Amino acid sequence: MIGFLDKIQRNCDRMLGRSKQMNCRLRPHVKTHKTVDAALIQTGGRRSGITCSTIAEAFFFQSAGRFDDILYAVPITADKFLDAMLLNKIMSNFHIMVDNDEMVSKLLEFEHQSHSKPWSVWVMVDCGYHRDGLDPESTKSIELVRRLLSAPGKVKLSGIYTHGGHSYGVESNEEIIRIATAERDAVVDFVTRLKSQVEGLGEVCVGVGSTPTCSTLPEHLNGVDEMHPGNYVYYDEMQVQLGSCQPEDVAVRVLMRVIGKYPEQNMLLVDCGWTGMSAQGSDANYGRIVGHNLCIKVLKQEAGEVTSIDGTPIPFDKYPIGCLLQLSPYHSCATTHQHRSIHILENEDSTHVRHTWSICKGW
Amino acid sequence: MIGFLDKIQRNCDRMLGRSKQMNCRLRPHVKTHKTVDAALIQTGGRRSGITCSTIAEAFFFQSAGRFDDILYAVPITADKFLDAMLLNKIMSNFHIMVDNDEMVSKLLEFEHQSHSKPWSVWVMVDCGYHRDGLDPESTKSIELVRRLLSAPGKVKLSGIYTHGGHSYGVESNEEIIRIATAERDAVVDFVTRLKSQVEGLGEVCVGVGSTPTCSTLPEHLNGVDEMHPGNYVYYDEMQVQLGSCQPEDVAVRVLMRVIGKYPEQNMLLVDCGWTGMSAQGSDANYGRIVGHNLCIKVLKQEAGEVTSIDGTPIPFDKYPIGCLLQLSPYHSCATTHQHRSIHILENEDSTHVRHTWSICKGW
Repeated sequence: MIGFLDKIQRNCDRMLGRSKQMNCRLRPHVKTHKTVDAALIQTGGRRSGITCSTIAEAFFFQSAGRFDDILYAVPITADKFLDAMLLNKIMSNFHIMVDNDEMVSKLLEFEHQSHSKPWSVWVMVDCGYHRDGLDPESTKSIELVRRLLSAPGKVKLSGIYTHGGHSYGVESNEEIIRIATAERDAVVDFVTRLKSQVEGLGEVCVGVGSTPTCSTLPEHLNGVDEMHPGNYVYYDEMQVQLGSCQPEDVAVRVLMRVIGKYPEQNMLLVDCGWTGMSAQGSDANYGRIVGHNLCIKVLKQEAGEVTSIDGTPIPFDKYPIGCLLQLSPYHSCATTHQHRSIHILENEDSTHVRHTWSICKGW
Repeated sequence: MIGFLDKIQRNCDRMLGRSKQMNCRLRPHVKTHKTVDAALIQTGGRRSGITCSTIAEAFFFQSAGRFDDILYAVPITADKFLDAMLLNKIMSNFHIMVDNDEMVSKLLEFEHQSHSKPWSVWVMVDCGYHRDGLDPESTKSIELVRRLLSAPGKVKLSGIYTHGGHSYGVESNEEIIRIATAERDAVVDFVTRLKSQVEGLGEVCVGVGSTPTCSTLPEHLNGVDEMHPGNYVYYDEMQVQLGSCQPEDVAVRVLMRVIGKYPEQNMLLVDCGWTGMSAQGSDANYGRIVGHNLCIKVLKQEAGEVTSIDGTPIPFDKYPIGCLLQLSPYHSCATTHQHRSIHILENEDSTHVRHTWSICKGW
């Protein structure tokens, strides 16, 4: 039986393999697990080239993990300048991201005696997700890049980034490939336009990625330098439903204990609620109870109501009070965020804890 | 303008007043806030008589708060016996709860050299919520109580408890009052039957409560000794929708910063996602953005998409990048659980932090 650590290693090796196959570097996102240990498996041991989603993560991976190349992939705001300046100073490469003219102005206006090194800036473009990013076809976007390049002592344009997060909302591999293609084309076409229209454009890194679009790849990623998926370390039942992985690839579990039996309701109560697994999923889709004809029907703060998937009577004798069930969660990012550390168990048949990994908390 | 601490105090004073009005003690639930500071406001300064939902809370309120009377209001299981035994030993009153014959057997079988004091046990009955609890009309439930009383050296029957959690799913005050009445009748009738049918029944405490049923009270609570609501400390938009409180009573906020502006999508991006507020609520019902015609449309891990409530164009000039918005959350229990501490701000107009309260984490 493959162990949980082996599953994580396999998921990470496969993604490193895919990035090689596409002639890209892998700059994995660390927001799903927020642990130094998993990040090192993602990078194949390199302490550089990761993507994060909070300033707290950047400090954590720099200090606890000695990572020295981190992309903070959320639009920066002025309240985070002092932290970002410090990170920029103590690391070889700390990159921030902009997609707004107001913030470019703030960046160019920023004056601080300790700000000795230019900001390394990535520009985010929208490839159809419509959460954030500049319109890559707008002349205003070209203009924003020109403004960034106007102050080489203050700003270095390092990269162009997009994230096809709408790949989480589709129902077929074809649609994922369509979005993966849109990710690629959005950034590659934008860089092509920049090269022809903007003076003084240096080397810029071109990055794309989400776990679905990096698990179900497009025909090619020519012109793309980096892939930025994150969830694939653990995967989850959402990714199974999206076709990004097989059920046996999901490497995270929530252990739940049966604490009550209610035959009148055809229900078992477990001692894990949304505090332990998050409430994401819903409608009996909170995840998969591994190896049993059981599902979570209702989640409360510290308890979950479990019933049979197909409505047949639960064989209650099979489940003594105190027995453990394992949930393969719907959304591993949300589940792991409910915890302060993750215990790496031997495998599904053994609750022996092989390692305990600390999770970065806060913002 | 009333400050946030004053709102908490007012919510707690009102609930203490309601319990007096009903001739009950208040044994408030602490699971919503999990802070010693709020618990002391709930009890009016007494370091006793609280209800908790995890063993970690019991240890936290005993050690950090010196509380010496705690009811652990979740069915106990054998894996928690050693912790419960320790809590029973170091506190004047630590109460556990059972609703299952298997666990009564385990309790009676439990032998440990340090177990010098009988378990103080509450029996949980079901008043129609159907999450947990014995059927109060079943003869098996009477039999379970007889078994508990059969070993007075090991077990002391201290109370009968019910929780009308289905009050969260109704749509009118009349329905809440109906459930509040069912809560009362379930436990009072059960105790009446016990008194007539069970030998050696001593003094038992009779407890009921949820925030809706303790905020919208039944005609009387004759025969009930204790009320156990919890959410009312902060309340939230769910409780507003349930009619338990007014919008101005909600005493908790999530501060979010505008980090992006996307007029094409009529959307502001904020730097708070489900990690900061939980994903509970959904369908643009994640909470109320205080004082603006804005609501959260989509929540991601570290970002939220905000649009106008009525579909009219957002006045983008009113929202510079970096400005703060305040969310009154849909479910304050879920929101506060996403954090390690709570900052008590002056009031809605001032982000001056008056106090910082530590939140009990873990299980």
